[in-house]
Amino acid sequence: EIFAALRAKLAGVPQVLAGRKVVITAGPTHEPIDPVRYIANRSSGKQGYALAEAARDAGAEVVLVSGPVNLPAPPGVRVMSVETAREMAEAVEAALPCDIFIAAAAVADWRAQSDAAQKIKKGSDGPPMLALVENPDILAGVARRVAQRPPLVVGFAAETEHVLDHARVKLAKKGCDLIVANDVGAGSEVMGGAENSVVLVSRDGEQAWPRLPKSEVARRLIAHIAGLRPDGETARGA
Amino acid sequence: EIFAALRAKLAGVPQVLAGRKVVITAGPTHEPIDPVRYIANRSSGKQGYALAEAARDAGAEVVLVSGPVNLPAPPGVRVMSVETAREMAEAVEAALPCDIFIAAAAVADWRAQSDAAQKIKKGSDGPPMLALVENPDILAGVARRVAQRPPLVVGFAAETEHVLDHARVKLAKKGCDLIVANDVGAGSEVMGGAENSVVLVSRDGEQAWPRLPKSEVARRLIAHIAGLRPDGETARGA
Repeated sequence: EIFAALRAKLAGVPQVLAGRKVVITAGPTHEPIDPVRYIANRSSGKQGYALAEAARDAGAEVVLVSGPVNLPAPPGVRVMSVETAREMAEAVEAALPCDIFIAAAAVADWRAQSDAAQKIKKGSDGPPMLALVENPDILAGVARRVAQRPPLVVGFAAETEHVLDHARVKLAKKGCDLIVANDVGAGSEVMGGAENSVVLVSRDGEQAWPRLPKSEVARRLIAHIAGLRPDGETARGA
Repeated sequence: EIFAALRAKLAGVPQVLAGRKVVITAGPTHEPIDPVRYIANRSSGKQGYALAEAARDAGAEVVLVSGPVNLPAPPGVRVMSVETAREMAEAVEAALPCDIFIAAAAVADWRAQSDAAQKIKKGSDGPPMLALVENPDILAGVARRVAQRPPLVVGFAAETEHVLDHARVKLAKKGCDLIVANDVGAGSEVMGGAENSVVLVSRDGEQAWPRLPKSEVARRLIAHIAGLRPDGETARGA
């Protein structure tokens, strides 16, 4: 950690989050159907991991709550590895309190109602109907807390259509301070790719950024967040 | 390919499959529910990739039909990358004819009945019921062919209980010549792990092997298969 902070300092990264604790979720969740099958969301975890590195480089203490991904743990970041949405919710809970919470994970909205203890066999009855139940809403859960509500709560909205409309609704419904919206529809190559093009949606309005490498989106987002007052407005200008 | 064959020869690997063509499936399949969600099987692809390498080292021409995994393509092996069971079935079809077919992939038995074109939103109606439909049975499809039925068809049976019983039923039901059965239940650490302990089930009976590295299971299995006559009996002894 000391080396990472030192390296960032030497590289001239402004220490805008020095002394702040940032909790970030990243990656997908896997929801078991039985011991061999699961429901998953497409998410490489790259944007969340890039955010953890950018926050660390800006001087923050970083906890990264990560679903199953194939990415190395960023040095100087505390990684909590989880598989399901319920495990992720518990890990986030355990990581609080913090100054900034960023929900970048693609959490499965639903899980299978029953997680069979043994492999479900193909029977003569034909394919089963899979009954789903709703998972805990981690972003709303943190944003709506009474005790230990982090001063700044940021969510991501990955949509395939009506991206801005969905993001505005999500901002209000979840009670968070900022939504980072992106279009992950066919042809966007955002999921799994190295680049992202996002629109920031807050109660102040919107701000569209050009298509950028995910590391650069992360760097700018951390700088933007550091300039926000806890109520979501920018401290300087805007 | 030349280098791989040369290396194997120099390393003294018996060229028991020289001049034979082997088609191997490996990894899981991902069955989309909508653009961001999918149903998957747990499978690292390690055993199937190890088999492809062992068959190559034994002098075979190898086609590896692989679902989404995080493994490098083995040098000297033709890799066909697929995502869904239907794509895997098509790729296998395109790779025929062959002398030996080994179905090591963990193919999803079911897919979602409708693959939504846009992300399914959480609505006020509560969680959806997911209607499933049966996927093509790739192993049985190849084993039951009239034209171009490979002389030797090998299947894998990953079970969490009654492993041998399920394997015997599978051998008969699929019409294949050999089933490699393994217990992937809780605590086995087979899935994603480096080792495997298998039981070979054929019409001749059963043969249990000790727990071995997946690469060693692959080497022995290729040697065993090379000693089998097309009808499933061993050529020498047994």
